[in-house]
Amino acid sequence: MANWQSIIREQLEKDREEAVALLQDWVRHPSVQGEEESIQESIAQKLASMGLDVDLWVMEGEELLKHPYFVSPREQFAGSPNVVGVWRGSGKGRSIILNGHVDVVPAGDRAQWSDDPFSGKVEAGKLFGRGATDMKGGNLSSLLAIQVLQKLGVKLKGDVIFQSVVEEESGGAGTLATILRGYKADAALIPEPTNMKIFPKQQGSMWFRLHVKGRSAHGGTRYEGVSAIEKCLQVVQAVGKLEKERNERLEDPLYAKLPIPIPINIGVIEGGKWPSSVADLVKLEGRMGVAPGERMDDAKAEMAAALKGLAEVDPWFAEHPVELEWYGARWVPGAVAEEHPLMEILQRQFEVVRGERAVVEASPWGTDGGLLTALADTPAIVVGPGVTQVAHYPDEFIVLDDVFDCAEIFALALIEWCGLDDTQSDSDK
Amino acid sequence: MANWQSIIREQLEKDREEAVALLQDWVRHPSVQGEEESIQESIAQKLASMGLDVDLWVMEGEELLKHPYFVSPREQFAGSPNVVGVWRGSGKGRSIILNGHVDVVPAGDRAQWSDDPFSGKVEAGKLFGRGATDMKGGNLSSLLAIQVLQKLGVKLKGDVIFQSVVEEESGGAGTLATILRGYKADAALIPEPTNMKIFPKQQGSMWFRLHVKGRSAHGGTRYEGVSAIEKCLQVVQAVGKLEKERNERLEDPLYAKLPIPIPINIGVIEGGKWPSSVADLVKLEGRMGVAPGERMDDAKAEMAAALKGLAEVDPWFAEHPVELEWYGARWVPGAVAEEHPLMEILQRQFEVVRGERAVVEASPWGTDGGLLTALADTPAIVVGPGVTQVAHYPDEFIVLDDVFDCAEIFALALIEWCGLDDTQSDSDK
Repeated sequence: MANWQSIIREQLEKDREEAVALLQDWVRHPSVQGEEESIQESIAQKLASMGLDVDLWVMEGEELLKHPYFVSPREQFAGSPNVVGVWRGSGKGRSIILNGHVDVVPAGDRAQWSDDPFSGKVEAGKLFGRGATDMKGGNLSSLLAIQVLQKLGVKLKGDVIFQSVVEEESGGAGTLATILRGYKADAALIPEPTNMKIFPKQQGSMWFRLHVKGRSAHGGTRYEGVSAIEKCLQVVQAVGKLEKERNERLEDPLYAKLPIPIPINIGVIEGGKWPSSVADLVKLEGRMGVAPGERMDDAKAEMAAALKGLAEVDPWFAEHPVELEWYGARWVPGAVAEEHPLMEILQRQFEVVRGERAVVEASPWGTDGGLLTALADTPAIVVGPGVTQVAHYPDEFIVLDDVFDCAEIFALALIEWCGLDDTQSDSDK
Repeated sequence: MANWQSIIREQLEKDREEAVALLQDWVRHPSVQGEEESIQESIAQKLASMGLDVDLWVMEGEELLKHPYFVSPREQFAGSPNVVGVWRGSGKGRSIILNGHVDVVPAGDRAQWSDDPFSGKVEAGKLFGRGATDMKGGNLSSLLAIQVLQKLGVKLKGDVIFQSVVEEESGGAGTLATILRGYKADAALIPEPTNMKIFPKQQGSMWFRLHVKGRSAHGGTRYEGVSAIEKCLQVVQAVGKLEKERNERLEDPLYAKLPIPIPINIGVIEGGKWPSSVADLVKLEGRMGVAPGERMDDAKAEMAAALKGLAEVDPWFAEHPVELEWYGARWVPGAVAEEHPLMEILQRQFEVVRGERAVVEASPWGTDGGLLTALADTPAIVVGPGVTQVAHYPDEFIVLDDVFDCAEIFALALIEWCGLDDTQSDSDK
């Protein structure tokens, strides 16, 4: 295997310039929700050129839309196709899914970006742009792992299934659709931005919407009304208190290093219609983390109880309870045993490539891995080159060396996991 | 005069049914900003049928748009004409402006209304709907005051100028346009909803917009970012503290009965784009009250200082100061001497009609009266039949008896103020 490592590295070096250009091209596609078509068509062409069996389709139909795990703010996916490419093995090997999403979150406040949010600019070994880290850079690692083995004439026994999915950022409908279409494997790798840490456990999460009520009045006699904006202060504090309680009792050692292992984030606030009227309604939208092993319904019940508790500190809430709705995105928590054979392979190859021990933690956020593990009987492990801290941030970037290191680790892991078909490989190495 | 009172009352009684139907019709015009054309045309027709010289025009032009007192979120007023109708006096009498606005604030959350917000429903002596109190009911009192005198064959010496203006709710551009068109008088009455209290002083007010900054991050690692929503809590509290300080030092006895004489209302909040991202920007919009006699620039400086003070409690604000912008609406504070002759007339006629002493206070909100007093040399007094507490509220209503009482007081005041032309009146009463 030492030999494999050096020749894989050498080949990746040769292909580096072209690979960076490809990632730049991907980042320059502003593939926010609903705008994924052009990048997916481009990826499908690339996979076809590599000889994979390519499947590009727009998901639809009752089976998907009525599925208990289906969550999305939309039911029409025109303009947002999924892409799967299968590199067929010769048989009798273990199969693997390399799953990644192409949808990116919106760029946010342009003023906070040093450059165009979709510039793809390369500087000092980093490639910049929304989606570079989350998670087009990781997707490139997966693609390069396949490509480098092909270039070296390697033939594997097990199938390698490359998946470029939509809708991860809003709950995983893209990956759910791949499962319903029949894709499954003996394991899955998801190169989400983990700073190259290996996450056998994935935190789940789900979105909520709160409606906080007030009573309207003219701003000049605002004491005749009740400001929903002022009431929101108490709601935000109550949610913060719940977050604190939930995290304090969390004992999983994999989470030990995280300041807030399962955060509750309020990401959107919107209320009131007129500067000189008292706001009668404020909407809050947020995301609640769910611990691996925790039932989503239990987490929901805790949120409901925290909001109900507001009535004890302020009678207003007894008469005008905060409305709680679970909507939109949801990521099922998932867990793979730390002793899983692919965990062992990944940690070993990480050490081979990086010369240091891999860090094994639990993911601080949900991924599509929960769906693969829960529904497709496909244990999913999350590890990727992206920089966790800049995901969803202005000036998002990825360190290019990490993309290639990850590709190297993946290529080595594929050989071990899927098995080398010596009889067919046209390489004698 | 006692005789005038009883015959005016008798005539108003005769006209009551038709007058209520007219107010219903007005309320059923949902004349929110930009949607005032149909009601203004209807009012212009009514004034023309009463023999007034009618002036309906869409305001425009540099003189208006560049005027230092011009404030409006828009610069095009197509669909929002002003209407003025002049009932010419025979000469040598004092003239008066009866000014009222037809624009109404939006209905707000429909669910908080018992009926359609523009129903015009009459029940138990009340007429319901957005604008009934603020201030179409008051406008009707003005119109009835003219009409009842006409029906009784009265001829006045001074001109009575009925003004139905737009844009009061966003800063008074409508009334400013009447001034620039040349309309002025020896005094003005503005029947804003005062619960029949008489307001010689008018609080000014102005709108502000705050931008509170955070730093974006993925919600799952929200501790890597800074939530602009959480920072807003401190900003709202700082504004509340400033409001408290400003009101505690206010000593005008006319404000003694008001819980918060010059409120600062934050009416709109909006920020964040994604439930699972940390919000990097929140916008707040509100209205700051300005005391009669206070310089608007001084009030602005106090707001700026309060926001600057945030840096002392949280270093975040030192590096990311809250942005303050004064925008949109502004109402100039105004004051008429309590000894003004029209004040005396109004208080006396109030007592004649209602059999009790009038309450004289300072207005808790700005009106167009500040502009008339400051720019048109037209001392403006605010008194009207509307119910202060339901202005800008769901289930806004007006008490119909008050509308007719106010019309009676206005009619009597017009006779006294403008002077009766005995030589021309075709009545011998």
